[in-house]
Amino acid sequence: MNKTILLAHGSGGKLSHELLEKNLLPPFSNPLLDKLDDSAVFEFSGRLAFTTDSYVVNPIFFPGGDIGKLAVCGTVNDLAMSGAKPLYLSVSLVIEEGLLIEKLERIIKSIKAATKKAEIIIITGDTKVVNRGNADKLFINTSGLGIIPPQLDISGANARVSDKIILSGNIGDHGMAVMSQREGLKFSTPIKSDCAPLNKLVSQMLEASSQIHCLRDPTRGGLATTLNELAKQSNVGITIEEEKVPVAEAVRAACELLGFDPLYIANEGKLVAIVDSAHAESVLAKMKQNRYGTNASIIGEVTSDHPGRVIMKTRLGASRIIDMLSGELLPRIC
Amino acid sequence: MNKTILLAHGSGGKLSHELLEKNLLPPFSNPLLDKLDDSAVFEFSGRLAFTTDSYVVNPIFFPGGDIGKLAVCGTVNDLAMSGAKPLYLSVSLVIEEGLLIEKLERIIKSIKAATKKAEIIIITGDTKVVNRGNADKLFINTSGLGIIPPQLDISGANARVSDKIILSGNIGDHGMAVMSQREGLKFSTPIKSDCAPLNKLVSQMLEASSQIHCLRDPTRGGLATTLNELAKQSNVGITIEEEKVPVAEAVRAACELLGFDPLYIANEGKLVAIVDSAHAESVLAKMKQNRYGTNASIIGEVTSDHPGRVIMKTRLGASRIIDMLSGELLPRIC
Repeated sequence: MNKTILLAHGSGGKLSHELLEKNLLPPFSNPLLDKLDDSAVFEFSGRLAFTTDSYVVNPIFFPGGDIGKLAVCGTVNDLAMSGAKPLYLSVSLVIEEGLLIEKLERIIKSIKAATKKAEIIIITGDTKVVNRGNADKLFINTSGLGIIPPQLDISGANARVSDKIILSGNIGDHGMAVMSQREGLKFSTPIKSDCAPLNKLVSQMLEASSQIHCLRDPTRGGLATTLNELAKQSNVGITIEEEKVPVAEAVRAACELLGFDPLYIANEGKLVAIVDSAHAESVLAKMKQNRYGTNASIIGEVTSDHPGRVIMKTRLGASRIIDMLSGELLPRIC
Repeated sequence: MNKTILLAHGSGGKLSHELLEKNLLPPFSNPLLDKLDDSAVFEFSGRLAFTTDSYVVNPIFFPGGDIGKLAVCGTVNDLAMSGAKPLYLSVSLVIEEGLLIEKLERIIKSIKAATKKAEIIIITGDTKVVNRGNADKLFINTSGLGIIPPQLDISGANARVSDKIILSGNIGDHGMAVMSQREGLKFSTPIKSDCAPLNKLVSQMLEASSQIHCLRDPTRGGLATTLNELAKQSNVGITIEEEKVPVAEAVRAACELLGFDPLYIANEGKLVAIVDSAHAESVLAKMKQNRYGTNASIIGEVTSDHPGRVIMKTRLGASRIIDMLSGELLPRIC
């Protein structure tokens, strides 16, 4: 019995098949996956959303999640941000030789739990192993497929002047949780990652109104970078109010201590919605009923002034230009 | 001007956007990709094939190809092995800090050339950067989508007794090319990888006959492992004749010198087809007209004897059980 991953687990030969049959396939068994052909095959008719992300977070376990949960939620959320109902996932592992199989099993369990929560199934996958020192424990790629209801048109290019900007909750939790785990920092109130699947929140929001113009999850680069992307893509200005942006006290304190700005810290269970102003309150009310939206608030609006730019009204009443993240605050945050 | 990849290129912020807008997006511009939303969205109706693979080949440049060409061809071939016409590709890069941007550009060019040849377009992607020493230059994940014609049913589970086994050409070229590049070995006849997209070969084969039961590309683990997978999946015996399996002289010599068996060496531009015996000759004739099938031959047949096992009749007239690859011959071959 091997306790660690060997190069031969990635050979395509006997040990690869054993790893598949013993560890990787049973938790995810379904008719499409179980065929074990080079591609998974299914009938589809409608509008398909397709997305991919590689996850390289360090450390692979952190308060509130691990790389497995992150790899499922991150890709599910990218589908949801197009208004898609997530359907199918691929999972591809790049494992460093020497990883404890017990750790891999914990991550597989976590992937399983996250797929269940997000109601998505894994239908195809791949496993590679690289020599010790040629990767860092485990990288995971997930690609996702989802179906978009007819007529729905959600895009970063669709923000319109006078739309409201809704943020689904506190910012900075994921980044600061990973950072404090990585650096061995202890805070009196432990910070947990917000890593979560947002697809049900999105479907509830769409029940409240079809006038949701843009959706995006502020991951790498944080809220500031996401708002800049949306302002540029839609060629509109965005104004937000500092006091409306919720930040947990522990995250604010940790950021102040370490010299970070929560606006630039990654989130993995939050979304920004840009919504027709007449519909914003009803969307917000619906969001507050979902456990991932209890802290949602309208943080600003879309303007015709300063197209492509984001301006924040500070607590002190000043206006500050909020730029994209420049440089790298926290590498390998997702 | 940065000459190397920095951690900030993976931050999601300014340098990430610059890398995208300057290097990564322009070569692949198309209306689906250019939208730059979290998911690519398109209409689809029919039978969809979905596959994923991560590529970690070392070195990233080798005779006959590089990791970019490999990442396109490998996934295109996985789609083709389901009988699918490849349509769309995702590309996700995990880059080691310090990679020369000039090298990344060469690989992007190579990805571009391969997608053109395979007539597939890239519609979504992702880029991560990890600290120096936490990956080895570049890993690439590609996931692919393709459409399967109605009625077509190709699966590793479909081999039937008396079917013929067709191999599309010489085996062992890719593995020995990568190995000799990695180890700095020189042979009088240089060995080049066979890395190639096989989708057109497959569509021509399907024009010749719809009685193609299984298709698989013998990559990791080589021809021996692939035949074992098919024998097990279909629960049939497979018998092949050693003298019918084509091996280039240089590859045979290199294998003998280094103690490798070409049956276990990876290929990246070859396929195994299991075809109804009455149709095998016409499929073979069609294959020989394609540049990737000129050396195709019928190497054996499916039997009711020894289900789940592969037997090879040697040149000397003996019968030898051919097992799956055990252990690891050549790590990071793809």
